[in-house]
Amino acid sequence: MPEQNPIEHLIGLLARLPGFGRRSARRAVLKMLMQPEQAMLPLAAALQEAAAAVQPCRICGNLDAVNPCGICRDPQRDHGLICVVEGVSELWALERAHAHRGLYHVLGGTLSALGGVGPEDLAVQPLLARIEGAAEPVREVILALPATVDGATTAHYLTDRLRPTGVQVTRLAQGVPIGGALDVLDEGTLAAALKARRVV
Amino acid sequence: MPEQNPIEHLIGLLARLPGFGRRSARRAVLKMLMQPEQAMLPLAAALQEAAAAVQPCRICGNLDAVNPCGICRDPQRDHGLICVVEGVSELWALERAHAHRGLYHVLGGTLSALGGVGPEDLAVQPLLARIEGAAEPVREVILALPATVDGATTAHYLTDRLRPTGVQVTRLAQGVPIGGALDVLDEGTLAAALKARRVV
Ligand SMILES: [Zn+2]
Ligand SMILES: [Zn+2]
Repeated sequence: MPEQNPIEHLIGLLARLPGFGRRSARRAVLKMLMQPEQAMLPLAAALQEAAAAVQPCRICGNLDAVNPCGICRDPQRDHGLICVVEGVSELWALERAHAHRGLYHVLGGTLSALGGVGPEDLAVQPLLARIEGAAEPVREVILALPATVDGATTAHYLTDRLRPTGVQVTRLAQGVPIGGALDVLDEGTLAAALKARRVV
Repeated sequence: MPEQNPIEHLIGLLARLPGFGRRSARRAVLKMLMQPEQAMLPLAAALQEAAAAVQPCRICGNLDAVNPCGICRDPQRDHGLICVVEGVSELWALERAHAHRGLYHVLGGTLSALGGVGPEDLAVQPLLARIEGAAEPVREVILALPATVDGATTAHYLTDRLRPTGVQVTRLAQGVPIGGALDVLDEGTLAAALKARRVV
């Protein structure tokens, strides 16, 4: 079959998704082709809708179809408590754990000497500006960063930068495995680590 | 996040695909959301194109964007040799093995007393009609059916029905594991079994 064949083209695009190999892509395409109206067109529409509607929240960096995001605009949440995460994936993991009732701040990575990631590459300044300009005073910033060297470096750096604001800085309790990525942890571990957080 | 949220909606649709759990669906959506123009819109377009263009071949039952399919219309292939497969998945597996240079016939399943699948539910009559009406005489029909009870029943049934046509009926050599599905076999095993096929 030539590369421009629509079946091969679709399999190729699906196979590029993380967690999706060529074999699963083939199986998925075959299953969808059995009922194109019910399976393929709704998925196409959902992709287009998400691509058109979803954008990063201008306050916290979460991805949502509204801006500010649903979390930032939720009056039921504690706006005096901000949980700093590396990325949206970690934010979603914490939301699934139903353990955090405050807001978030997506850094967009961690500091990395080897990777050439400096403070100006992360949303550090927006975090400070957000705390300075908050309508409701921020009492506490929880650093929910990965338990890696880069995560620890980033936590130390943020602690220093946050000191002048007078906000209490805490971090997740030990319980997060060393070297472990937050977004693949089970929800119970995440919830426990969040609950047992300590002042830095 | 409510169910009508476009992100959750998209994750839900992707998670329904075979081989794709909720976790991989989340990872895939997050990755795509990082570059919606490059990742989501091309996939949406490919789904729509496949849904619109792909249909079962009126001769062999293969799925393709042209009808008759690219295999049936290929003059380089041996039109006197037809390989009977349970489904399109098995057809694709044999194509990947590059072992069969003839045509195919997709049965659409196997006979199953328990499943209530009878000969009239499968493309048996179209196979006989195709052999009777062939412009180039069919010399051989290869039964590439699964090595299961239902596969063996179907092979016996087809052998009986094909006898009056005088066509030589062969089956895949032993080498296909008992109870194994053809489309998850490695390509070498499939190619060897096809090469060592025996007269039934
Ligand atoms: Zn937000
Ligand atoms: Zn065909």
